[in-house]
Amino acid sequence: MSAGRYTDARRRTHELFEPELGGTIGYYTDWFIMALITANVAAVILETVDSVATAYGPFFYYFELFSVAVFTLEYVGRVWAAVDDPTFEGPISGRVRFASRPLLVVDLIAILPFYLSAAGMQTDLRFLRAIRLVRLFRLLKLVRYSSALQSFGLVFYEKKEKLVLALFANLLLLTLASSVMYFVEHPYQPEVFSSIPASFYWGFITLTTVGYGDVTPVTPLGQFLTGVIALLGIGLFALPASILAAGFMEQTDDDSEYEYCPHCGERIK
Amino acid sequence: MSAGRYTDARRRTHELFEPELGGTIGYYTDWFIMALITANVAAVILETVDSVATAYGPFFYYFELFSVAVFTLEYVGRVWAAVDDPTFEGPISGRVRFASRPLLVVDLIAILPFYLSAAGMQTDLRFLRAIRLVRLFRLLKLVRYSSALQSFGLVFYEKKEKLVLALFANLLLLTLASSVMYFVEHPYQPEVFSSIPASFYWGFITLTTVGYGDVTPVTPLGQFLTGVIALLGIGLFALPASILAAGFMEQTDDDSEYEYCPHCGERIK
Amino acid sequence: MSAGRYTDARRRTHELFEPELGGTIGYYTDWFIMALITANVAAVILETVDSVATAYGPFFYYFELFSVAVFTLEYVGRVWAAVDDPTFEGPISGRVRFASRPLLVVDLIAILPFYLSAAGMQTDLRFLRAIRLVRLFRLLKLVRYSSALQSFGLVFYEKKEKLVLALFANLLLLTLASSVMYFVEHPYQPEVFSSIPASFYWGFITLTTVGYGDVTPVTPLGQFLTGVIALLGIGLFALPASILAAGFMEQTDDDSEYEYCPHCGERIK
Amino acid sequence: MSAGRYTDARRRTHELFEPELGGTIGYYTDWFIMALITANVAAVILETVDSVATAYGPFFYYFELFSVAVFTLEYVGRVWAAVDDPTFEGPISGRVRFASRPLLVVDLIAILPFYLSAAGMQTDLRFLRAIRLVRLFRLLKLVRYSSALQSFGLVFYEKKEKLVLALFANLLLLTLASSVMYFVEHPYQPEVFSSIPASFYWGFITLTTVGYGDVTPVTPLGQFLTGVIALLGIGLFALPASILAAGFMEQTDDDSEYEYCPHCGERIK
Repeated sequence: MSAGRYTDARRRTHELFEPELGGTIGYYTDWFIMALITANVAAVILETVDSVATAYGPFFYYFELFSVAVFTLEYVGRVWAAVDDPTFEGPISGRVRFASRPLLVVDLIAILPFYLSAAGMQTDLRFLRAIRLVRLFRLLKLVRYSSALQSFGLVFYEKKEKLVLALFANLLLLTLASSVMYFVEHPYQPEVFSSIPASFYWGFITLTTVGYGDVTPVTPLGQFLTGVIALLGIGLFALPASILAAGFMEQTDDDSEYEYCPHCGERIK
Repeated sequence: MSAGRYTDARRRTHELFEPELGGTIGYYTDWFIMALITANVAAVILETVDSVATAYGPFFYYFELFSVAVFTLEYVGRVWAAVDDPTFEGPISGRVRFASRPLLVVDLIAILPFYLSAAGMQTDLRFLRAIRLVRLFRLLKLVRYSSALQSFGLVFYEKKEKLVLALFANLLLLTLASSVMYFVEHPYQPEVFSSIPASFYWGFITLTTVGYGDVTPVTPLGQFLTGVIALLGIGLFALPASILAAGFMEQTDDDSEYEYCPHCGERIK
Repeated sequence: MSAGRYTDARRRTHELFEPELGGTIGYYTDWFIMALITANVAAVILETVDSVATAYGPFFYYFELFSVAVFTLEYVGRVWAAVDDPTFEGPISGRVRFASRPLLVVDLIAILPFYLSAAGMQTDLRFLRAIRLVRLFRLLKLVRYSSALQSFGLVFYEKKEKLVLALFANLLLLTLASSVMYFVEHPYQPEVFSSIPASFYWGFITLTTVGYGDVTPVTPLGQFLTGVIALLGIGLFALPASILAAGFMEQTDDDSEYEYCPHCGERIK
Repeated sequence: MSAGRYTDARRRTHELFEPELGGTIGYYTDWFIMALITANVAAVILETVDSVATAYGPFFYYFELFSVAVFTLEYVGRVWAAVDDPTFEGPISGRVRFASRPLLVVDLIAILPFYLSAAGMQTDLRFLRAIRLVRLFRLLKLVRYSSALQSFGLVFYEKKEKLVLALFANLLLLTLASSVMYFVEHPYQPEVFSSIPASFYWGFITLTTVGYGDVTPVTPLGQFLTGVIALLGIGLFALPASILAAGFMEQTDDDSEYEYCPHCGERIK
């Protein structure tokens, strides 16, 4: 009877956290966790505004305690109930396999730093700052809940060879452009174009057409080369957009209803 | 007889302001109101040039009086004649329902501030400045007249899920990028990257490739991250363009003449 | 006989300048005039470099004399021989009609200023500077020779309603954005955002993502609005690219060979 | 026997360097040479960082010796074994024809400067700097190994007329825009817009939307023209992206499976 109650509680916990099982309650848990993640990120962002931090300091502290408690419950509950899924059978081996999945590792990273700092294992200021940064990555927990984002991922996935190739071509242009500019501009601006790695910053900012203007060519040759490189960059950096546009077009074609030949029943369009 | 004359006047007023009924006069009213709106916006714009304001001050004043008079007549006429349309029956309930429609609310907002200030209810300078701004939103009255713009709206509407998703992905990248840059650059530029909300400005300006250059990274790590983020941004911010391009392509396909199977008469392409 | 020789000379002049008649000589004239136009533009450009102007001043002067002579011969010859084409019959009325065509007006504008200044009718320095500018527009003479450019024009022409609409939507956003920014930033930067027309410069530079950085928002509200406007701008300014991409796709489809149904001979694809 | 051994060694050398023959060893040589090229470029880049150059100077020197040795062996081996391929028969004429191919010339340029400087033929500092630059172009050797990049080249190749035309249209706009801006801005900024060639720099930076902000218009007319030119530029510079997007779409269509008419077996789609 006790074993039955235990199994029952585990099954209900499983339903609570895995909405894809179709339970109504899992649906509400989902929205609650998503809202909590968003509120968490908002808290980290607002806490960096000095006036807000001074005024609402204690509130942020208690909100963080509450969030970590919820996320910990979620993590422990998930791992405990995982064995309910036949894929993860075995009280220990199943749970270890479950906890090794990337999304679960993200869940752990989202709470672990809090316990490390609370345990006083680290009191270094830098470490505490890094923890605040890690809290932001709780945003990545959202990816689990956004099945819609995965339809985007599909376009990227289907075009992955071409996108990687475009990235390679862009990096090739970037390397050549940055190196040439170093040789041209270094003698005249030794501080700005101090080395090729340093002039990569110029290359990125120019080829992406961001163009801050904090690093600019001053020699006529450098200015001429910048013009040519920016023009080439337009062509090369238009590649990803072109590839993705083709990808979205295909997806659209796939979505459209097909026409079938009335004579043989085969797909015509 | 008097009632008939009243109904007749109402019907003609209705035709005057609702061109879609097909009346010739409604067509001219349309163009007149559109021209007046354009002239109004031009007036607001020119009035901010000091030399023009000094030279033509009285003219602008009388033009504003004239415009408000016309827009008031238009608004009152429209609401009064609305009951002529069977959809808005009922002398009071029909007119209230008619006046609650978004386009009519825009019409009211375009004239109300003038009466409020004229009534001396507010003499605050800020309020008067705000009124001038509201006059600019008379531009939105143009939307009613641009049925063509609605064909654009269709492309946006059909792709709305994907566009919202692209916006979400962009905001995710923006949040992570701005926060990381805050942690990296804040210790070296406490004034510029004073808080995460402040570094969102950097994020927007960089990821949209505007790149003013008033907020730039100064640390090598920050510069490296900016390069990577700008590259990612090119990919993500190319999404809306790619999605819209696919949308326009489909629209084009729909426009093209279809071919019909000569055997069964069904559409082949 | 003299009349015959006159007609013959006119016909040969006609062939000399109108290559579409298929004469071999017209083909060479074409290339010669195109080369001369290019050299002319190069001359105007180089003449603005002080060191070059001092060193090669006389050369540029004689080259200009030579160019104007050739272009004058071309213009006179064309107009004189125009009546050889049945479309332009009538010794005077035909030639006037011919000379009124846009391309011929461009030809006249390319040489007239030289004669006006040579005739001493104007010695104003500004006028002489303007003349040099006009010489640059000899580049537009090239359009006549680039039948290839007209295939581009076709894409623009077929999409003209949508492109005009996109321009209108962009100008709407530009007007609203520039005006709002004026009201927000004027009190804090009265010099930079001095009037709405002045802040249009900010609007253009921001919405086209050029982002020089000479005019930037300094208030938190202005910076927030700039972020939102830049994001909207990405969407709206992506419209022309999307529309043109769709246009080029269609053109490609039209180019591809069609398949015909073997049963009825009608086009299937 | 000796001749047989010689032929055998030549054949094996041929297999070593020409992986397309299908030999397993050629596959490993390929990867080794690609890795060496990448390491070479990394070395050139890192050597420009002062601290790295001081710390690892000797290492970079020996690595360069090793790289040149390998590349020399590769070059000599390739040319020697070339006659094994029937296309390059003839001990001398065949090898000369082989060595004249562009990829082999790149291979020679990648090593020749080292021998020239080692031979003491040139001790000029500038020459030595130029040699370091040439070493970077060893990157181009990678093109041989990236058959994937050639699928990109195909899209560029198929659209070459339209891309050249788009480049021409862009250069036309660039020339006119830069010249007009020179005439407008030169009197007010004689240092910045010193000549038309100098204002081409402004043109490139503006029309590619890089917008550094080191050269900006200061006159109201110049600012107005900049706005119009930037708007035109968006349209014209969107052409390459649009053309490439159409090109990638077609390539996709070609990849998709075709449908065949069930009646006659001909391709329908």
